[in-house]
Amino acid sequence: MNFRMIARILGAVLLLLAAVLLLPALVGLIYHERVGAFLLTAAIALALGLAMVFACKPRRTDLYAREGFAAVGLVWLVLSLLGALPLVLGGDIPRYVDAVFETASGFSTTGASVLPDVEALSHAGQFWRIFTHWLGGMGVLVFVLAVLPLSSDHSMHIMRAEIPGPTVGKLVPRARKTALILYLIYLGLTVLETALLWLGGMSFFEALLHAFASAGTGGFSTRAASIGSFQSVYIEIVIGVFLILFGTNFNLFYLILIGRAREALKSEELHWYWGILIFSVAAITLSIRPIYGSLATSLRHAFFNVTTIVSTAGFGTEDFTRWPGFTQTLLVGLMFIGGCAGSTGGGLKLSRVMLLVKTAAADLRKIARPRSVHRVALDGQRVSRETTAAVYSYFVLYMLLLLTCTAIISFDGYDFATNFTAALSCMSNIGPGLSLIGPSGSFGIFSDLSKIVLSFTMLCGRLEIYAMLILFLPSTWRKAG
Amino acid sequence: MNFRMIARILGAVLLLLAAVLLLPALVGLIYHERVGAFLLTAAIALALGLAMVFACKPRRTDLYAREGFAAVGLVWLVLSLLGALPLVLGGDIPRYVDAVFETASGFSTTGASVLPDVEALSHAGQFWRIFTHWLGGMGVLVFVLAVLPLSSDHSMHIMRAEIPGPTVGKLVPRARKTALILYLIYLGLTVLETALLWLGGMSFFEALLHAFASAGTGGFSTRAASIGSFQSVYIEIVIGVFLILFGTNFNLFYLILIGRAREALKSEELHWYWGILIFSVAAITLSIRPIYGSLATSLRHAFFNVTTIVSTAGFGTEDFTRWPGFTQTLLVGLMFIGGCAGSTGGGLKLSRVMLLVKTAAADLRKIARPRSVHRVALDGQRVSRETTAAVYSYFVLYMLLLLTCTAIISFDGYDFATNFTAALSCMSNIGPGLSLIGPSGSFGIFSDLSKIVLSFTMLCGRLEIYAMLILFLPSTWRKAG
Repeated sequence: MNFRMIARILGAVLLLLAAVLLLPALVGLIYHERVGAFLLTAAIALALGLAMVFACKPRRTDLYAREGFAAVGLVWLVLSLLGALPLVLGGDIPRYVDAVFETASGFSTTGASVLPDVEALSHAGQFWRIFTHWLGGMGVLVFVLAVLPLSSDHSMHIMRAEIPGPTVGKLVPRARKTALILYLIYLGLTVLETALLWLGGMSFFEALLHAFASAGTGGFSTRAASIGSFQSVYIEIVIGVFLILFGTNFNLFYLILIGRAREALKSEELHWYWGILIFSVAAITLSIRPIYGSLATSLRHAFFNVTTIVSTAGFGTEDFTRWPGFTQTLLVGLMFIGGCAGSTGGGLKLSRVMLLVKTAAADLRKIARPRSVHRVALDGQRVSRETTAAVYSYFVLYMLLLLTCTAIISFDGYDFATNFTAALSCMSNIGPGLSLIGPSGSFGIFSDLSKIVLSFTMLCGRLEIYAMLILFLPSTWRKAG
Repeated sequence: MNFRMIARILGAVLLLLAAVLLLPALVGLIYHERVGAFLLTAAIALALGLAMVFACKPRRTDLYAREGFAAVGLVWLVLSLLGALPLVLGGDIPRYVDAVFETASGFSTTGASVLPDVEALSHAGQFWRIFTHWLGGMGVLVFVLAVLPLSSDHSMHIMRAEIPGPTVGKLVPRARKTALILYLIYLGLTVLETALLWLGGMSFFEALLHAFASAGTGGFSTRAASIGSFQSVYIEIVIGVFLILFGTNFNLFYLILIGRAREALKSEELHWYWGILIFSVAAITLSIRPIYGSLATSLRHAFFNVTTIVSTAGFGTEDFTRWPGFTQTLLVGLMFIGGCAGSTGGGLKLSRVMLLVKTAAADLRKIARPRSVHRVALDGQRVSRETTAAVYSYFVLYMLLLLTCTAIISFDGYDFATNFTAALSCMSNIGPGLSLIGPSGSFGIFSDLSKIVLSFTMLCGRLEIYAMLILFLPSTWRKAG
C-alpha cells in the first residue's frame, strides 16, 4: 500500500477544501453573517493538508487500482466528516450526525435532507450546503486532477473510481486534460443555467445555488417547498431541460464541441435515454390527468418530476406519493436506472441497465440454443465478457447493499415502502422516496444509526460502491501484494 | 424443434392428469358431492392425452436442452389452464381467471389465493386445490419420469428444468431411478406428517391436505384463518418442523438413508440454512416481544412464521403486517432467499444466494488485488466460472421479472409495498406479502390482467424462469439449429 502517495492526495484535497471554504465565508461577509466557523474549518484543513503534502514524500508516485480506489474512498469520507464541521460550529445544524448526513448527501449529490427548516439556514451555510453538490457532481478528485500538477500514470485509476459508469472513456490521451475539458463543459453549463434562472426572476443567489444543485444533479434547494415554491413554469422548464443535459454523458458534449455532433447523436445510450424520458413523461401525464384535470398541468408536473428523478436530482414540485400506484412504481423503476454513464446523475447508470438487459436476453437465447454465438453489443461494438461480468457483479453488489441498508434502517420501525425507497434513494443519489420520505417528507425521522448507514450508502452510490467498500477490506491494508 | 416428442411428453402428462383427477372425484363421492366436473375434465384430458401419445410417433427421442425447457414450460401452462376447469365447472370458483390463478398458485406451490371464502369450497374442490401443491412440489414431470418408461438420454434436461437449484445432482446414474427415490422420500415424509397431524386432533381429511400443502411448501389451507384457526401449539410445531424438512435439499435425505449421514451434515448450504433459521427466529422473537408480552408466545409465533416464509409455504397464524418494520423487512429478505436447492421451497434458493454473496466478495477482493486468484468454493469444492456466471444471470433475470411484474400490477393503483411484495411473493412462490396482501389479505383485490401476470410470474418462479420465458422466444420455435 502506497500510504505516502495516498496521504499526499488526501493532503491536496484538504488544501482544495481550505480554498473552497473561503467561498461560503465570502458569501457570509456579503450578507453580514459570522463566518468564523468557515474560516476555522478552512484553517484546520489548510494545516492538515500542508502537513500531509509536505511530510509525505512518496517513494513511488504510481498507484495500484486498489490504492486509487482507497484514496478516493478516504477523500470522500474525510470531506463529509470535515465539511460538516462549519455547519455545526456556525450553528446552522446543531447536531454533528445531522450535519454529516447533510454533507454526505451534498457531496454525493443525493439531496436527501434531515433539516426541519431549510430556510432558517444562514446564507453562508446555505451556500456551502448546496455548493457541495457542485463539487461532488463532477468529482472532487477530477477537479484536483484538472488543477494540480500530478503525474499522469496514476490519475486514470482515480478517474475510474470517481467518474460514474461501467467504462471510463478518455476523451484525450492525458487524464489531466480530460478532467479539465469535463470541468469546463460543466462550468459553462452551470453559468448558462444561472443566467437563465436569474432572468426568470430568481435572485442571483438562488439562481446560482439552484444551478449548482442541478449541475451536480443533487436536489438541495434554498426553499422548503423546493422548486414548487417558485410557482413558475419557466423555471421548471429551465431546470428540467438542464437536468436532462446534466444526466447526459459529458463525452457527447465534448464530441459536439469538436464538431463531431453526428457521432454524438448516434449514441445508443442517448437513444434509450430519450426513449425513457418520452415514455415516462407520456405515461405519467396520462396517469395523473385525473388528479389535475388539465392536460397541460399534468404534462408540466410529469415533465418536471420525470426529469428530476431520471437525472437523480430529486427536486420537488408536487408530492408524488399522492399520485397513482403505477406512477409511483414507474418512478421507483427510474430511481434504479438513473442517468447516463459519465454524467453527474446517479443510479445504476443507463448503459449498465442496457448491458444488464442485453446480457440477460443473450443468456436466455443461449439456453435456448447453446451452440450458437450470442454477442452483446453497444453502439455497434461488441462488449467484452469482462465488461458484462463486471456489470453483473456491480448489480449484485448494488442489490445486496440496498437490501442490507433497508434491513438496518428498518430497525426504526417505519413501513417497508419508506425503508426500501429510503435505501434506494440514497443508493441512487436521488433524494426523495415514497411513503414517509416523499417530496414533502424528511429523513429527519430516522435514528442516528440509520442516518450514519444512509450517509455511507449515499457515498457508496456516488462512488459506485468499490471505492467505499474497499476501505473495509482487510486485504486492502495488508502490506504485501 | 422436436415437436412430436414434446407432444408425446405433453400427452403423457395429460394421461397423468386424467388419472389424478379421479382422486378428487373419489373424495367427492365419499362426501356425497357432485363429481361430474372432475370426471368430465378427466375425460377431456384422457382423450387429448391418448390422441397426442398415439398420433405423435417421434422420429427421434432425444431432446435438446431448449426442447426440454419448452416441454416443461408447456406442460405447466397446460396443467394450470386445464386444472382450473373442474373448479369452474363444479361451481367452486365461478370465474375462469380466478380458477387459473388458484390452480397456477397451487401447482407452483405459491399458495396465494383470490378466494373470498375458502371454507365454502366442496370437499372435492378443496382436495384438488391443495393436491396441486403436492404434485407441483416435487415436479409433475419428475413424477412422469419416475413412473413412465421414457428413455434416459433426454430425461436429465427435463429434471434440470423442473428441479430447483443452480445445479442438479443425480443421486444415481439413471435419471428415472433418481426421480423415483426423490418421490419415495417425498411420499414417506407426507405420510408421516399426515399421521402426526391426525394424532394432533385434525380430521384425517384436513391432516392429509395440510400435509400435501406443507410437502409442496405451498401454503393453501382448508381454513380461512389458515393454521391460526387450529389454535394448537402442537400443530404449529409439527408443521414448522416438516416445513424445515421440506425446505431442505432432498439429496441430503438420500445420503442419510444410505447411511452417509456424516456427509449430509457437512453440507455448507445446510449450515447456512440452520444459521438463517436460528438467527431469524431469535431476531423476530425479540422484535415482537413487546407486542405479545410473553417470551414463549413470541417464540412460538416467530418460529412458525419464519419456517413458513423460509420454506416459502406461506401458511398464516398471525398477521405479520402488524409486526415492527424490522421484522417485516427481515421477512421480505427471507422471501428473496427461499429454501435450499433441490427442495420443494421456492425463492432464489439458498445455495444461489450463497454463490451470489461469495462471488460478489471475490469480485470485490479482485478489484482490490487484480493479480491474485479469488476462487469461489462450495462444500470445499471450487465452483466453476460457468456456474457463478449462470447464478448471476439468473439473479438479474429474477430482478428484471420482479420489477416488470411490479410495474404491470401497479396499474391497479395499490401502494408500492403491496405491488412489490405481491410480485416478490409470487416470484418466490410464498403466498402472502405485506400491506394489503398480508396473511389476512387476499389477491382477489387485483384486476384480471394482474391475476394473469401474477399467475405467469408464479410459474416463472417455480420453473426458475427459463422454461417459462423460453416459450416466448421466437428462436425456440424456429426449425433450424
